[in-house]
Amino acid sequence: MPDAIPEAAVAAVIEAGRRMAERNWVPATAGNISVRLPGNRVAITRSGFHKAHLTADAVMAVDLQGVPEDGALRPSAETGLHCGVYRAFPAARAVVHGHSVANTVLSRRAGETIRLEGYELLKAFPGLDTHAAAVAVPVLDNDQDITRLQAAVEARWARMADPVVPGYLIRGHGVYVWGPDMDAALARLEGLEFMLACKMAAISLGGSDP
Amino acid sequence: MPDAIPEAAVAAVIEAGRRMAERNWVPATAGNISVRLPGNRVAITRSGFHKAHLTADAVMAVDLQGVPEDGALRPSAETGLHCGVYRAFPAARAVVHGHSVANTVLSRRAGETIRLEGYELLKAFPGLDTHAAAVAVPVLDNDQDITRLQAAVEARWARMADPVVPGYLIRGHGVYVWGPDMDAALARLEGLEFMLACKMAAISLGGSDP
Amino acid sequence: MPDAIPEAAVAAVIEAGRRMAERNWVPATAGNISVRLPGNRVAITRSGFHKAHLTADAVMAVDLQGVPEDGALRPSAETGLHCGVYRAFPAARAVVHGHSVANTVLSRRAGETIRLEGYELLKAFPGLDTHAAAVAVPVLDNDQDITRLQAAVEARWARMADPVVPGYLIRGHGVYVWGPDMDAALARLEGLEFMLACKMAAISLGGSDP
Amino acid sequence: MPDAIPEAAVAAVIEAGRRMAERNWVPATAGNISVRLPGNRVAITRSGFHKAHLTADAVMAVDLQGVPEDGALRPSAETGLHCGVYRAFPAARAVVHGHSVANTVLSRRAGETIRLEGYELLKAFPGLDTHAAAVAVPVLDNDQDITRLQAAVEARWARMADPVVPGYLIRGHGVYVWGPDMDAALARLEGLEFMLACKMAAISLGGSDP
Repeated sequence: MPDAIPEAAVAAVIEAGRRMAERNWVPATAGNISVRLPGNRVAITRSGFHKAHLTADAVMAVDLQGVPEDGALRPSAETGLHCGVYRAFPAARAVVHGHSVANTVLSRRAGETIRLEGYELLKAFPGLDTHAAAVAVPVLDNDQDITRLQAAVEARWARMADPVVPGYLIRGHGVYVWGPDMDAALARLEGLEFMLACKMAAISLGGSDP
Repeated sequence: MPDAIPEAAVAAVIEAGRRMAERNWVPATAGNISVRLPGNRVAITRSGFHKAHLTADAVMAVDLQGVPEDGALRPSAETGLHCGVYRAFPAARAVVHGHSVANTVLSRRAGETIRLEGYELLKAFPGLDTHAAAVAVPVLDNDQDITRLQAAVEARWARMADPVVPGYLIRGHGVYVWGPDMDAALARLEGLEFMLACKMAAISLGGSDP
Repeated sequence: MPDAIPEAAVAAVIEAGRRMAERNWVPATAGNISVRLPGNRVAITRSGFHKAHLTADAVMAVDLQGVPEDGALRPSAETGLHCGVYRAFPAARAVVHGHSVANTVLSRRAGETIRLEGYELLKAFPGLDTHAAAVAVPVLDNDQDITRLQAAVEARWARMADPVVPGYLIRGHGVYVWGPDMDAALARLEGLEFMLACKMAAISLGGSDP
Repeated sequence: MPDAIPEAAVAAVIEAGRRMAERNWVPATAGNISVRLPGNRVAITRSGFHKAHLTADAVMAVDLQGVPEDGALRPSAETGLHCGVYRAFPAARAVVHGHSVANTVLSRRAGETIRLEGYELLKAFPGLDTHAAAVAVPVLDNDQDITRLQAAVEARWARMADPVVPGYLIRGHGVYVWGPDMDAALARLEGLEFMLACKMAAISLGGSDP
């Protein structure tokens, strides 16, 4: 029998779901949430649950390759993307994936990146201590083959000189963001979503956004 | 005396009203909600109640033709549309009808359908396991004669090659969505409303939406 | 000593404030709320209180001319408009006044009226049992002289062939809506605000709204 | 050991954070909040806390130059701007700083000021008893050097004939607003944010805003 998932990890996932639902970032059963556990384990939301009302039995454990500890449970379809973050970034201990109107609409209009420049909230990202900066948030084409999508993500990371943005968008699909703990991951998500909402509003005013 | 309505059905209707009100989808006393009961019965909201604060006495029973079990109570004016769904789709066990700004505004601009293409959230609809798809959500002209409107709905269903979308819009009026249970119906509603909100935002940015 | 205000009236005012605040219709200390009491009395919010957190001592009584029963208390600056409704419409028993972005922005662009046509939610207004209708909601120029503003309102009512809309807008200021009880007044307010939000969205999409 | 911070001051800061978070004005760990204490002390939020869930230990005391009473604690990075308000305006007893989509987007498009004219809610500002007025809200360029930014703010105040607006915007960053107590500061913030939201909506409709 697999080890139990620490209560604090389960609570962090449940609370993150509740907070993301409040902001309308997890419509239907969309979105998924995970935390890294000791011993190369990952606690992640199971497939098909609404994130507004998660309970402990909606959270299950997988290894860093996404293999469930309990073969009878089905993890989120995008578990491979969570595990890809944990394998690539040892400091990442929480990953959140949400759908917002802003990230969906802007990613459908974007090329390979979305540029964010001059926002005070850029400081929500690690390594940026000034608004006088610009970042290019990667935008990947959507793909139902998660192994292939994760390979595309890794190829993009390899091309990035300085992957300062702890997140990426999938076109028409949503955003992935990670951090050293759940509070940090959610704060970065809020910062990114705020800037995307600003960018969308700026364009709707008939102007452009640098 | 008619049989009582099962408590779980009443609770599902009340909770659905509360959730739809949180999203501003049932302004004034608009919207209505139903669940299929055993024995060809339907539990549905009575006319004139605000959906944010439903109580058990706001829910009544009708048969599949919409005839009230208790003749002293008046069901929602659109009961005929709910019953039409239950007659046509044996697997449908919950129907929700809401008004959102997005579904109202887009349906007033639309022709006979609203096209949704390339959204990950298309997977919220049954039978779609990829974003690489397009659906045409039917849009019907509004009509205060519910029998005539239901006939138009049935005529539309008869013309649809593959009626994959478990819902339709009524122009300037709102959306109907159904599912195998209330959670599924609400998840499909959330998915549809999310995509309509995206489509509206995309158009407001000065672009088009495929 | 003046008679106490019935508890149910105070509770209705407090709850209306809470609901209007949830929708962001009473920013700062804006907005005001009243109910008609027996004996030509009116219970109305005092000046300067935030409507999100009203308590019983924020509600006071005036007569139909707006004269406070307790001269030490200052009623809302727009008490004269509430009393004007009660004098003109004997069936009106609750009046709500709120500020929304939609009513503020549209009234600043409007001429003498705002036209609403073809919306199912027109049925939220009394005397309309079909969407196949159009109403012209009066828009009055703002005026800090409430006696003069109320005279302008009455002059407008006198010119209206069939004053079917139980409300009006004040340019750049907000909306007044009334009904036979508080629930009805709030439902009409929700219906009107919903249609104004639709109209604003329709215009932002680059189209017009009939 | 420094004197304790009065409980009422701590409670006011915590509640202000909660209310600002409800409106999405403090994304990530952005925003900061302070109150003036007796004896030239200021209670202010510590750096790095999310404003939605403040606790008493997230509030610390500084002097009017921003020097912490407890050197082990780090105040908000923008403490110097709060103290600048308290030094310049003896009647100011609460300062709030928030980020909204409207204030961020409009300040990025603005020149040296944002003009607000004809809104009833102008009356939320002190000294304005009519909508028939116009104010020019100062917009300062963002600067990570807070001492230099505060000097720019003071230079702007010196140039203003009648500094009627108890607040200013920092470009791409947010808004500062103050008042004689926390309720007044929040009411002014709500009034200003409401008018900025109206201005943004008016421009998105394809028109201008005076």
